[in-house]
Amino acid sequence: MAKQGTLMVVSGPAGVGKGTIVKLACEKAEGKIHLSISATTRAPRPIDSEGVTYYFKTKEEFQSMIANNEILEWAEYVGNYYGTPRKPVEDALSRGLDVILEIEVQGAMQIKKNFPGAVLTFVAPPSYEELESRLRGRGTETEEQILSRLETAKGELALMEEYDYVVVNDRIEQASDDLITILRAEQLKQKA
Amino acid sequence: MAKQGTLMVVSGPAGVGKGTIVKLACEKAEGKIHLSISATTRAPRPIDSEGVTYYFKTKEEFQSMIANNEILEWAEYVGNYYGTPRKPVEDALSRGLDVILEIEVQGAMQIKKNFPGAVLTFVAPPSYEELESRLRGRGTETEEQILSRLETAKGELALMEEYDYVVVNDRIEQASDDLITILRAEQLKQKA
Repeated sequence: MAKQGTLMVVSGPAGVGKGTIVKLACEKAEGKIHLSISATTRAPRPIDSEGVTYYFKTKEEFQSMIANNEILEWAEYVGNYYGTPRKPVEDALSRGLDVILEIEVQGAMQIKKNFPGAVLTFVAPPSYEELESRLRGRGTETEEQILSRLETAKGELALMEEYDYVVVNDRIEQASDDLITILRAEQLKQKA
Repeated sequence: MAKQGTLMVVSGPAGVGKGTIVKLACEKAEGKIHLSISATTRAPRPIDSEGVTYYFKTKEEFQSMIANNEILEWAEYVGNYYGTPRKPVEDALSRGLDVILEIEVQGAMQIKKNFPGAVLTFVAPPSYEELESRLRGRGTETEEQILSRLETAKGELALMEEYDYVVVNDRIEQASDDLITILRAEQLKQKA
C-alpha cells in the first residue's frame, strides 16, 4: 500500500517565476511529483496541446463536470472557464505521488476549503520592486498589462497569509529545493 | 534582524540511533544547528567533559535553577536530576540558529506544553524486531538491561502519536537529511 501523496497548491503573482521553480522541482523529484493540468473552455492556441498545456472542453462539458463534482476548483476569466479536474489528481495521490496545482489565489482558497489535507505554498518575490523589474524584464506585456498585473499582485500578496508556507523566489535553485523540502516534510508529518 | 530559529525536540527509544543521526544532521548543517547540552547532578565519569557532555551541577544549584525557571524541562533518574538549561537554548534561537534537544519522551511532553513553537520529532525504528536486533548488536548492555530498554521502548512508541513528525531511521543518511528537511520546512512555514 503506497502512502498517500500530498496535494500542494502553488500560487504567486505573475512574474514571480512560479512556473520555472515548479518545473525545476518536478525535474529534480524524478517522477515523484505529478503536475496537475487544468481544464479550460478557451480556444486552443498554436502553442497548445491537448492534455499537455490544458484539457480543452466545451462550455457544456465543463458545466457538466462542475455539476458532477468532477472539478476541484474553478474560476471564470473573460468568459472562459478554467479548473482542475478531480480524477487525475486523486489517481496520482493514491499512487503515492505528490501533486502540484499551480493555480490562482481564488482557486487556492477553494482547495483549502474543500480538500483539508492540501498544503498551500505561496511563491513571493524578494520585494515588490523586484517583481516589477521581473515583469518589465520579460518584455511580454504592454505597459498597461504590467500595471494591471502589479495591481493584481497587491491583492495576491494580501492573501499570502492564508497560505501554509511561503517560498521567496530569490534564487530558483533554492526555491525549487524548498518546494521539494515542503513535500518531504509533509510526508514525515504525523497524520492526526 | 535574524529570523528566530526553530526549537526541535528529538526523541526515540534507546538503540534507534538518534544520537548518530542528530550528530550527522548537525555536521551537514554546518553550524546552523545548535545541539543543546543537558545539565545533570550525576557525578562526572572519565569520558565526561564540562559543557561538552553535560553541565555538571550540585543538587542545590539544580534545584535553584528549577526554582528560577532556568530549566526548560527536567526529570529525575535514579536519584539524579537531568534537564535542559534555558539560556543557551534561547540565546541560540535568537541568533537564528535551530536548536535540537535530544531528550526523553517525558521531557518532550514538558517542552510541548511550555514552548508552543517547539517541533517534536520522533525517531522510530523500521520495526520493533529491528530495534531489538540493534540493541543486542551494540553489545553494551546486559540481557537484563536490554529487556528493560525494550520494555521502556514500548511505552515510548505509544507516545509517538504526540509528536509532530516521525522519522524512520532505516538509513542514517536519509534520516539525518530528514531532520534537516523538517527544520527547513519549519522556517518556510507561515507564522500565525
